Amino acid sequence: MKSINLSLDYLEINESCFLKFVLLSMVSIVLIGTGNIATHLFDTFSLYDATHVIQVVGRSQESLSYFSDKVDTRLLTNQIKEADIYIVAVSDDAIPEVSKKLKPLKGLVVHTSGSVAMTALLSNNIGVFYPLQTFTKGKKVNFKNIPICIEAEKSANLKTLSSIAEVISDTVYNITSEQRKHLHLAAVFVNNFTNYMYAIGNDICDINNVPFDILKPLIKETALKIEGLSPLDAQTGPAKRDDIETMQRHLGQLKSRNQQKIYKLLSESIQKKYGKKL
Amino acid sequence: MKSINLSLDYLEINESCFLKFVLLSMVSIVLIGTGNIATHLFDTFSLYDATHVIQVVGRSQESLSYFSDKVDTRLLTNQIKEADIYIVAVSDDAIPEVSKKLKPLKGLVVHTSGSVAMTALLSNNIGVFYPLQTFTKGKKVNFKNIPICIEAEKSANLKTLSSIAEVISDTVYNITSEQRKHLHLAAVFVNNFTNYMYAIGNDICDINNVPFDILKPLIKETALKIEGLSPLDAQTGPAKRDDIETMQRHLGQLKSRNQQKIYKLLSESIQKKYGKKL
Repeated sequence: MKSINLSLDYLEINESCFLKFVLLSMVSIVLIGTGNIATHLFDTFSLYDATHVIQVVGRSQESLSYFSDKVDTRLLTNQIKEADIYIVAVSDDAIPEVSKKLKPLKGLVVHTSGSVAMTALLSNNIGVFYPLQTFTKGKKVNFKNIPICIEAEKSANLKTLSSIAEVISDTVYNITSEQRKHLHLAAVFVNNFTNYMYAIGNDICDINNVPFDILKPLIKETALKIEGLSPLDAQTGPAKRDDIETMQRHLGQLKSRNQQKIYKLLSESIQKKYGKKL
Repeated sequence: MKSINLSLDYLEINESCFLKFVLLSMVSIVLIGTGNIATHLFDTFSLYDATHVIQVVGRSQESLSYFSDKVDTRLLTNQIKEADIYIVAVSDDAIPEVSKKLKPLKGLVVHTSGSVAMTALLSNNIGVFYPLQTFTKGKKVNFKNIPICIEAEKSANLKTLSSIAEVISDTVYNITSEQRKHLHLAAVFVNNFTNYMYAIGNDICDINNVPFDILKPLIKETALKIEGLSPLDAQTGPAKRDDIETMQRHLGQLKSRNQQKIYKLLSESIQKKYGKKL
């Protein structure tokens, strides 16, 4: 029995390697979009033989200028090439409209959005290829460290997506549209709202003539701390300690009524969260 | 003229080196306190010849156990050694009480708090030695990257503080009690409240069966992004874009009324901030 099991395993491994080889050697990509994500994806796919971008499609010649000396470029709806995967990397609002404009395509059509349902795409083969990261224009990123959330209706399509995702990233997750919706909401808190906390910190420093740079090592350590500790265990500060005197003094220091409201609401929330545990 | 100027510069440089040498070769330290900051400071001072901890003072034998085989230890008020600097590294509330209990000391007495005024210390020579960082028990820190904010009434004392701060850290700032008060408030936003944003993100993931780990690279990048970009310029997300539809959907997704309130207040604040700029 043991030897049969072993040989089956062996066959399975070889079959999966063979499939991967066939898929990877075949993946041709058309990028639809010319913004931040499209540019970062183009640069990243260009690093590997297995992911070949054969065309970039944009809405204006100007938006295509970065790509035009590197790859075939086309205006939307004009002579789109046949490819294995079409990656629609446009703003959330534009996805349905761009999807409508694409003529019926044989290949797999995916979008890159965190908050739009897969079914917003109108095609026979649809999916999602969502790199969960904040992209800055002109700042190189290493996709190896960026989680890619993939989804597809058909299992063969999921396999294709998984193959190209695994080429560029070390962490690939199968995530449903429902899960992705919540992941995107969580990302608003840990990315957008966190950055807004930095902005308020910066304001307070500016008003009081203190260089914001002093706070940057603290900001970095706060982010790194939760690598080994849950945010629940990492919480510190006057609200966690129920230090009423310090909180009152802080409220008095804040000049902006809006910042006072934020300080109060967040402190009360932290107090409630930890108070219940006592 | 030129040669006279040069030789004066030369003299000045040598004088400052000599002063530094004299100060550094003389600095003996008594640490009062046995918590996180005291432990991290003890470990760090022990790395250098110039900063010699001669005694650690605590409120109980148990709290002194980490130090007792490494250095002379004493219970508070008992036979405190003569030293150049006494560092009171206890909780904010305890600073006045501990300060009262110390017999009149010749050396410089400083505390390590971000929010307590220097004058809370009752002694002839007082100051502040505030390392601006979040310390985790058992997690080694590299003080070289931690900004140290120093303050003293007398300029000779400030020089002494500056000398030992520069031994352990690459960034030392002269910060008044007034500035430090605001810096500490800004730190509550970028550290405590930011960590609470992580906690809400974690909650949303847990409830919806998505691993929180997917968000960790985003959290790291959000913190690193402001190295080269102001938080004002780094802001992204539905509130910044005034994307009402996404914000409404997000509010519908949140199960907790408190989290809804936070989402609403922060989104409205971001909208106002960027709306005014249009």
